[in-house]
Amino acid sequence: MKVTIPQKNIKWLLEPGCVVLVTSGTIHRSNIITISWQTPINSNNPCLILLVINPRRYSYELIKINMQLVINVPGENLLNEVHFIGTVTGREIDKFKKSNLTPMPAKKVKPPLIKECVAHLECNVSNIVNSKNHDLLICEVINAEAENEYFNGKWIPEKFHTIHYLGGKYYGSLGKTLSTCDLKLNQLYNNEYKL
Amino acid sequence: MKVTIPQKNIKWLLEPGCVVLVTSGTIHRSNIITISWQTPINSNNPCLILLVINPRRYSYELIKINMQLVINVPGENLLNEVHFIGTVTGREIDKFKKSNLTPMPAKKVKPPLIKECVAHLECNVSNIVNSKNHDLLICEVINAEAENEYFNGKWIPEKFHTIHYLGGKYYGSLGKTLSTCDLKLNQLYNNEYKL
Repeated sequence: MKVTIPQKNIKWLLEPGCVVLVTSGTIHRSNIITISWQTPINSNNPCLILLVINPRRYSYELIKINMQLVINVPGENLLNEVHFIGTVTGREIDKFKKSNLTPMPAKKVKPPLIKECVAHLECNVSNIVNSKNHDLLICEVINAEAENEYFNGKWIPEKFHTIHYLGGKYYGSLGKTLSTCDLKLNQLYNNEYKL
Repeated sequence: MKVTIPQKNIKWLLEPGCVVLVTSGTIHRSNIITISWQTPINSNNPCLILLVINPRRYSYELIKINMQLVINVPGENLLNEVHFIGTVTGREIDKFKKSNLTPMPAKKVKPPLIKECVAHLECNVSNIVNSKNHDLLICEVINAEAENEYFNGKWIPEKFHTIHYLGGKYYGSLGKTLSTCDLKLNQLYNNEYKL
């Protein structure tokens, strides 16, 4: 079941560096773009996410109309759709229809969610920083939901695999949790000051 | 063997969104900081990487002295060291010594490399953008090297696992390559215009 994620936990949805599907526009005129270049830049109050986008993209035109977007997190089952969406332009086709994805109304913003994704971060674009060939969109998350079977404040790689872009037609799968070792950490800390 | 990475392939070292160890200062007075908030923001000529850092960090003081840093990519074997380095301050201790990591001279910048990491991106900090609680460091990569056994223009997850921060003491391991399916992609493209 998808549940609302408390503000302080929203960043953990994107922290591992996964590929995301960003929706823009309105439920009547929307687009989807695949973005691999993303990172949180503020944890809480508000949670801020930075997205990197080429200003020539059709999605950028739509984002600029209402300065809103939704960051959707896809799983391994959407691998081909993620790649397809990242290599065609929404100026020519309806990416929702072509990829058999379902637009759903968001709670607080105009762009639709993608029903088949497991997490949704509804955002206002609060600032844009021009860089060399891309613009940096600073996105303030105003509502977030995720499947509680897969995300309990952290992703559970044993139940759900985020996907990470390796290059070309290849992606990596985050499939295993690594736990730090308390014994080894205590040896390293050895009574030194923690942050 | 570590080999020089051509400019156009450098971004693929960080594209999957892995945790990195950033070194600053000089070989005589250096520090290491663990950073999970990173993304490429320009592919080539030059390759630009954005790092997010809290201005109160000791590493930030060192970076501002010579405006240089090295982004080192650790593997699973350095998990405890990565976590330790991310939770103590270099103002109080020598993180290289405490974590038994080996500083090595870089080719083109003053901060040292970490020998035990499998890739090194030597950078000049070309711009700093102030954000809410963190600063965004725009880093121009001027030299990069990586183990050719693990990286052949893309990471090879079957041979080397980048690590990705899940939260708390937990990290995820990128352990499997997912290949898109040509048949399925062709059905999706269905003669539509590619970008």
